[in-house]
Parts: sequence; structure tokens; C-alpha cells
Amino acid sequence: MISLSTQQVKQITQNIELPSEHWRQRARAHLDTLTKPLGSLGRLEDLAAQIVAIRRDAVASPLNKGIYVFAADHGITAEGVSAYPREVTYQMVLNFLRQGAAVNVLASLHRAELQVIDVGVDADFDNVPGLLHHKIAKGTNNMLHEPAMSDEHLAQALKVGATLAAAAAASGKTLIAIGEMGIGNTTSASAITCALTGAPPSLATGHGTGINPEAFTRKIAIVESIGLKYFGTSPNPQPLDILRCVGGLEIAAMVGMILAAATHKLILVIDGFISTAAAALAVAMVPATQGYLIAGHQSEEPGHKVLLNHLRLLPLLTLNMRLGEGSGAVLAMPVIESAIAVYNQMATFTSAGVSEAQS
Amino acid sequence: MISLSTQQVKQITQNIELPSEHWRQRARAHLDTLTKPLGSLGRLEDLAAQIVAIRRDAVASPLNKGIYVFAADHGITAEGVSAYPREVTYQMVLNFLRQGAAVNVLASLHRAELQVIDVGVDADFDNVPGLLHHKIAKGTNNMLHEPAMSDEHLAQALKVGATLAAAAAASGKTLIAIGEMGIGNTTSASAITCALTGAPPSLATGHGTGINPEAFTRKIAIVESIGLKYFGTSPNPQPLDILRCVGGLEIAAMVGMILAAATHKLILVIDGFISTAAAALAVAMVPATQGYLIAGHQSEEPGHKVLLNHLRLLPLLTLNMRLGEGSGAVLAMPVIESAIAVYNQMATFTSAGVSEAQS
Repeated sequence: MISLSTQQVKQITQNIELPSEHWRQRARAHLDTLTKPLGSLGRLEDLAAQIVAIRRDAVASPLNKGIYVFAADHGITAEGVSAYPREVTYQMVLNFLRQGAAVNVLASLHRAELQVIDVGVDADFDNVPGLLHHKIAKGTNNMLHEPAMSDEHLAQALKVGATLAAAAAASGKTLIAIGEMGIGNTTSASAITCALTGAPPSLATGHGTGINPEAFTRKIAIVESIGLKYFGTSPNPQPLDILRCVGGLEIAAMVGMILAAATHKLILVIDGFISTAAAALAVAMVPATQGYLIAGHQSEEPGHKVLLNHLRLLPLLTLNMRLGEGSGAVLAMPVIESAIAVYNQMATFTSAGVSEAQS
Repeated sequence: MISLSTQQVKQITQNIELPSEHWRQRARAHLDTLTKPLGSLGRLEDLAAQIVAIRRDAVASPLNKGIYVFAADHGITAEGVSAYPREVTYQMVLNFLRQGAAVNVLASLHRAELQVIDVGVDADFDNVPGLLHHKIAKGTNNMLHEPAMSDEHLAQALKVGATLAAAAAASGKTLIAIGEMGIGNTTSASAITCALTGAPPSLATGHGTGINPEAFTRKIAIVESIGLKYFGTSPNPQPLDILRCVGGLEIAAMVGMILAAATHKLILVIDGFISTAAAALAVAMVPATQGYLIAGHQSEEPGHKVLLNHLRLLPLLTLNMRLGEGSGAVLAMPVIESAIAVYNQMATFTSAGVSEAQS
């Protein structure tokens, strides 16, 4: 049915291996020689072991970090699902390019290289430098009435993300984070969550950027209608169908980037509700992808918890954030770097002459 | 009864003011002009407002950060309350000085200046450079049989911490973290927790560095005995009495540092169970001190949660750590710096030309 994308996906996903259990065990054994009570660094130790299992070798620190923010517009904004007008997607892309947004400040502070990618903003960026120009369309269709995108647009968006992951690997990046900007995209993420997990719309839909109670009620009804329209008779819809019918161009690009990042054995930090929806689709397509993921934070959007539970991922941070842009993913980077730094740099009991535990 | 310390404490605490509500409101108003949905940075916004309320002015970023690790031994180790032999306190101090411990690695990665202070280690450090030499005694007394320290030693330890806080302020530090090293000191922290909060020893006692079930049972019984011995007939023991009878020299120095840091309007990150026990004593003495505290993380020690609830502090990180040394406090520093960076550096809706929310 969606032959082009299927072919595309095969090219992206054919080399995804599970992270190495052998290397994970080696990492655990090393951690137990370091001058600290066994296991006392908690999740830092889990992170270090996961990263060594992904990279399969000594991991250089500091990590070489990149953050990729995908921007696109959504046809569903015609239904009044957001507190902000649609043009804010365009305005915020310009704000990113002028270093004014939260993700700029965080990326600069934590030394992650930021790339902003237009995959589907409803505006012309012809003369704007600093932006990666990969516009596929000026936003998606209104999914309340027709599928969000064509099969061809889906394939193109997947390829944008996959190409960026390959370029990141080629340029020496080891840790990448994904984020997004797209007014209306929590509605897509809610519809994806319901289709993938079976959660009811009322549990997977939140207030997004801050809608009023009336708009919130309407948003839940829209998510319900969309689910019935496309997946009402299908108990287990295929992830590519979900992505095409109720996704977004930025979400499709993130799916492509996540799958290709796993192929290239990159460590991948996901951000909030939208990027986790992309990750859940990627894992539904290739389950081994899960091993490459780190959940940066737990957002305030209720659907995010549903997805993290579905993916069996524990978020590193819970700071009541709900901004997107990759902000929660960048904020988790210092924790991830801390894990690798203690792994690489701490003394052992033997080298430091410290007595081990009795009994 | 403890006149020397009382006089000492008056000198330290007489200038502690509450953080400024006026400045907190000004900070909130500024945060609402930045290019993000209202409140969408969650606890980063709370942190920024708290810090502006503490500093009462524009806050320079990056913050000037220091971490102070206080080391001392404990007489109670004679009762077999720890998985590690007593000499590990001494050995770990040497490990700190050689940059081999977790806190060294984290302080270096996150650019915090690390100071290690001997207030009561049972060893001679006469020829050791790099250590701050403030030894008061070679450890505390065995509190199962007699008060942990004399009134004079308590006063000296408080003064060590207070002097360091004054020096930190004079050298331009704005954010300080406290940590500790002392085999046996979770037993002190448990006894302090029970005396301050009324929690039963079974809920305030944990496995420390990793004791076996038999030693754990013994540890709970010891915490119970100590509480009965000193505070059995006193429903609300005075914090200085608690500190003298069941504290430690490093804990007393931390109490002095916390109180003096509040006097000097420094932002103070506390670490795990031990440093939070010190903070709880400081707040019991001068309640306004609470406004200067940031809880870096939630440790695995069960008594830590009791204390954080008692202090109405929400930890920034929950990473299943239980190491001490200040490790959890340093790990929280990038989050705190992120809060100030977004506060100082983000664009406003007006400056960026971004449309605001429709209601």
C-alpha cells in the first residue's frame, strides 16, 4: 500500500543492531572497580553502561553534541486546537536563527551545536541564512478531513531526517538530541499516542501551549474523531500509516533521524511529547531502536507519560516543563556527560589505595 | 546550657533576611515576557525567580560556583554501622586531593571550584597540600555512650563553616554546594532526622554505603537507643542540642556554612541525606534560611525524603544516587545555571516579533 515509504524505510533500517550486551557487562564490571559504594551512582551508572553498549568501545568525553530542531506547520490548526496562531511556527524559526529562544540559550550553555531544519513551515525562507532548507510542503493537510500527508511526502520527510543523522555521524557527533517547533503538533502527538498504545483520547491529550477549557474539550473530540476516521476498524495500525495519516512533516523527519541514528550507533536523547511520539513510531517499526534512546525529561503533557511507559523509558529529569524545541533534551545532556565523565575519569579502589567494603 | 554556641550562633545568624518577595515578583513578570508559553519552563522559572529573590538584582551568568566537602570521622563506627572501615574517610580525602573521586570529576566537568575541608578526620594530614586544615578533633565520641561532641567543639565547627561562607562571598562566589565524607555519618543523619521530625527510626534509617541485613537491623536499634538516651523525655529538642549530642563535626561545619551563606545571600545547593540533615538543623535555628536552599537531588536513603518533606523542598534530580560527597549537588548545578541563562538571555515576544497567545 505504501510501497515508496516501505522501500525507503528498508534502506534506513536494515543495519540497526541491538546495543551490545557484552559491552554493557564490561562497563558494569568497570563501574564496580571505581571508588564509590557499589551502584551508588544510580542512574549515572545505567547511562554509562548503556552508552558503552551503544558505542562498543571506550567513549571519548566530553561527548560531541548536536541538537536538531525540525519545524513544520499543521493543517489541523484550522480547527482551533492551539493557543497560538499558526504564524508563530514561522516567527519562532526566525527567533531560533537569532539565538533568542530557550533552546538557543540552553544549547549555547551546554555546548551543543544547534541546527534548525525547515521541513514544512508555511512561509518562504528563501533569503534566510543559517537554516537548513528541506521544505517538503507548506504544512500538512487538515487531518480531520484527509490524511496529513501523501506517501511521497512521508518518504521525503523520512529521508531528510535520515540524511541528517548520517551527516551527524560523519562529522563525529556522538550524542544527538531532537526537538521540534510546529503550532498544532501536540494534536498529532495525541493522535499518534492513541493509535499506537490504545490509550483513550482523554488520557493522551493535554493543554499544549496553554489552551482554554473550551478549546481543550474540542481538542479531545478532534483527536477522537481522527482516530475513528483512520483507525476505527484497525486494532493495530501500522506505524507508517499512523505517521502518514495523523503525523506531521517534522515528526516524520524525526522518525527518519531516530532510525538512522540507531543505524549509525549514535546516542539519542529525546525531548518531550512530540519527539517521543516520533520515537515510539520508530520503535514500532524497528524494536531494536529502543536501546539507543535516552528520555531527557518528563513533560507536563499527559500523553508523554503514556508514551514513556509504552517505551519502557524512565525520564532523566522531571522539571514540569512543556516547551518542546528540544529544551528538555538539551537540559539532560549535562547528566549524560556526567555519566561518561565519571566512567572515564574516576580512580579505582586499587589505584587510589581505598579499602573496599567488608562482608 | 550551651552558652558558647548560642553566642556563636547569634553572631552568625543575626543578619539572615528572607529572600525578597518584591524581586521574586519582578522576576516572574520578566519571565512572562520571554518567547515561550507562560510557565512552560516549569521549575526553571521557579529557580530563576528564587535566585533573583535571593540576589535582589540582575544575576550574572554563568554563576561563580564552589563546592565544599567537609570530612570527619564518627565514634559510632565502633558499633559496626557501616559497610566500610573507618579509615576510608582518610583514604577518600586523599582520593579527593588526587582528583580521583566522583565529586572531583563532576566539579571539573561543571566548572565548580572544589574545596576539601578536614574538620575531624582520624588521621594526620600535616604534610598534605591542597587540603583546608581545620581539624577540631580526631572524630566524634561514640554517641551511644556520650554526646558526640563538647559544646566547645560544636562552636568551633560552626565557626569553620561560617568562615568559609564569608570567604566564598568575599571571593565572588554566587552558588555554593555542600557535601561531606564521613564513614558512619548516615547514622548521625538518621538520629537527627528522628529528633527533628519525630519520624520513627525504621523510616529514617537506610543502608548507607551498603550494609547487610544484620547490620541494618543493628543500625536501626542504635538510632532508636540514641534517640531515647538524649531526647527520650524531650518532645522538641533544641537543634543545637541535637547537633551536639548526635551530630558530627562535618555536619556542624555544614550548619555553620548554611547559616552564614544565607547571611551573605549566597544560593545554596544541598546534596543528599547528610547535608540535608545539616540544612534541616539550620532551618530549625533560623527559619528564613529555607529560602536560600535548593535541593539538588533525591537520594536513595529513606530518611532523605522525610527531611525534604519536612523542609518543603522539591529535589531537582531523582537519579537513585546515594554517594554523598556533594555529587548530587554538583550534578544539579547545570540545571540551576540553565535557569539563570534563560532568564538573562532569551528574547521577549516584543523584541523577537513573535505573536502572543490568543485566549
